[in-house]
Amino acid sequence: MSTGVTVPRGFRAAAVAAGLKPDRLDLALVVADRPCAAAGVFTANLAQAAPVVVSREHLRGGRARAVVINAGCANAGTGAAGLADARETAVVAGLALGCPVEEVVVASTGVIGVRLPMEKVRAGIVEATARLSTGGGADAAQAIMTTDTRPKEVAVEFRVGNATAVVGGMAKGAGMIAPSLATMLALFTTDAAVEASLLRRALREAVGGSLNRITVDGDTSTNDCAVVLASGACPGAAIGGEGPGFDAFRRAIADAAGQLAGMLVRDGEGVTRVAEVRVEGARTEAEADRIARTVAESLLVKTALHGGDPNWGRILAAVGRAGVPLDADRISIWIGDVPVAEGGAACDYEETLAAAAMRTDPVRLRIRLGEGEASAWIWTSDLSHGYVDINAHYRS
Amino acid sequence: MSTGVTVPRGFRAAAVAAGLKPDRLDLALVVADRPCAAAGVFTANLAQAAPVVVSREHLRGGRARAVVINAGCANAGTGAAGLADARETAVVAGLALGCPVEEVVVASTGVIGVRLPMEKVRAGIVEATARLSTGGGADAAQAIMTTDTRPKEVAVEFRVGNATAVVGGMAKGAGMIAPSLATMLALFTTDAAVEASLLRRALREAVGGSLNRITVDGDTSTNDCAVVLASGACPGAAIGGEGPGFDAFRRAIADAAGQLAGMLVRDGEGVTRVAEVRVEGARTEAEADRIARTVAESLLVKTALHGGDPNWGRILAAVGRAGVPLDADRISIWIGDVPVAEGGAACDYEETLAAAAMRTDPVRLRIRLGEGEASAWIWTSDLSHGYVDINAHYRS
Repeated sequence: MSTGVTVPRGFRAAAVAAGLKPDRLDLALVVADRPCAAAGVFTANLAQAAPVVVSREHLRGGRARAVVINAGCANAGTGAAGLADARETAVVAGLALGCPVEEVVVASTGVIGVRLPMEKVRAGIVEATARLSTGGGADAAQAIMTTDTRPKEVAVEFRVGNATAVVGGMAKGAGMIAPSLATMLALFTTDAAVEASLLRRALREAVGGSLNRITVDGDTSTNDCAVVLASGACPGAAIGGEGPGFDAFRRAIADAAGQLAGMLVRDGEGVTRVAEVRVEGARTEAEADRIARTVAESLLVKTALHGGDPNWGRILAAVGRAGVPLDADRISIWIGDVPVAEGGAACDYEETLAAAAMRTDPVRLRIRLGEGEASAWIWTSDLSHGYVDINAHYRS
Repeated sequence: MSTGVTVPRGFRAAAVAAGLKPDRLDLALVVADRPCAAAGVFTANLAQAAPVVVSREHLRGGRARAVVINAGCANAGTGAAGLADARETAVVAGLALGCPVEEVVVASTGVIGVRLPMEKVRAGIVEATARLSTGGGADAAQAIMTTDTRPKEVAVEFRVGNATAVVGGMAKGAGMIAPSLATMLALFTTDAAVEASLLRRALREAVGGSLNRITVDGDTSTNDCAVVLASGACPGAAIGGEGPGFDAFRRAIADAAGQLAGMLVRDGEGVTRVAEVRVEGARTEAEADRIARTVAESLLVKTALHGGDPNWGRILAAVGRAGVPLDADRISIWIGDVPVAEGGAACDYEETLAAAAMRTDPVRLRIRLGEGEASAWIWTSDLSHGYVDINAHYRS
């Protein structure tokens, strides 16, 4: 089955090389045939990019028709002028498509602090409008990449009554990945007709269990956003309230978001190995989450992952500094299925087995606190030379 | 003037190759001729190493005679057995030196989760006792190194009445450096006679303004501790209360701690460039500190430092995700003397000047929030291939 945002009926897409990046697709346009129910979630970073401000406003009404996404420039840290640029981007798309400006969602990714080259953006939108097609999703997924090494697309079918609807999606990484209350750029589409408040709820749930549970470098972006549009173009797939249809949609979008999250962390900057960090036995989920994130973002844990070194002492040290009250003498740690620490100290284990478990991919790190019943998990990646290379000279 | 812990009168030291690490000095012993007033501060990590637990107990009385420090094994994550090892280390030193066990401070650094080889430790202490000398400080500073590339010693003279006393010190880095309420292993000595509560106060102040203000990798250690011993061997240098003598001592130990902190971050794992991050215009010092630490520990900021890339958008993004409420449109940023952002957006600056400021060493990053009057600063380092190399296979 093919994947991407144009798999659901009622959507067309195109991408063009607008000249924001040298010699590649860098501007994507995704358009629904008719106005859609829509919802979005946005970054918790207080330094919010201009497109985040504009799209949040536009989605307040729960409707959207089109999404414009550019790479090469984040339009963040650009002040009032950048805000005007983001608004103008929506105006130009609205004019080109013949829809109200409020139905246009805008998103940007790239360098922070640089203005959008609006002449290129205007020309790009006009050109992309002329090229819209029901097979354009793949180009769109290509155009939104920054340091990603491959495009990220997904499609998940689900049943509503007798109808088979589908959730499509695309996302981009690959650095400044530590989504908080939101995510990197991700766009979902569905051909079911889903009422806007249900759409919002399903999106929040899906993102909370997927895109919010990955970290590459701990740096929450200024531009994170995840948006979903429901075209209703699938005959018979109308979801107006809770019930089996909504449940199927929730599962489908959660599945789609989970797949994209996996692709994002796997394709994180310089990543050679990924790991799941699971914390159990915490007093609250929030405390479990805080500890899981602290372990997942520890440079010492990430470099040990890179080297395939089962250095569980670094995990213990990260748990201890997470800011959560606990008794370190109750902590147990597993690498894969190998118990390496119990009661805060080494247990009797085979170093070769622990080393083998640390060299699988994905690695599974499990920490049990013995403080309560709550748990949480997060996906992380190793830290390699590649990350340093990519980020030491990102703008040059 | 020579430097180190045996520069103040009344102290002898020695180091031996006890076999904890291959073919190098790895066990240091610092001994005062008579019992000293003493104080210590210890890691805020809840997974505390056994020597931290023991030394905290022993220093409760405000007196100490000797400090035993080993490299090669942190004696952390070792449970009740590790605690017994730390206690036995103190007992052995007390017997060898003929002093009460409570007057022995113990400290360890190295791999977490591994037991101390006690036979080697016992033999090492006996051997070191036989070699104690007033010139032994340099060997002791050598013996406590882990991934440090050079020993770190300091000496600062100060006046008490007509007497000239001195603060000596040594410390080790070079990874797991993000001291919190305490620091890495650091030992100060002085030949002034300083009353124990004043000693504690001066140490806390000194560490708060120096060793607590550096970060290499954000990973607060399980073994952090800073200890000071005052021998009173300098005739006429008695500090029994507040006054000019105490003020001179405070300044001297703060100076000594500041110098060691500078050496620690400069010799951090893989470090090629260091930077001061200063946050001004915050509502509270705690908020300024939180933002400064978030910027200082951002992998994107650290890799930009490595590349000498004045990518201030990453600084803005880190400020925005620090968890401190603020208006991002009021943020101004300087790199060295070059203003790069004002009102949350780029200002008109010469890219070549900003790049030059980002390639000096140390780099000075200044962030003004416009929320209040409080400020804070922290020293950080870049993130290089060297850090990854050192930590991917630390135990092998």
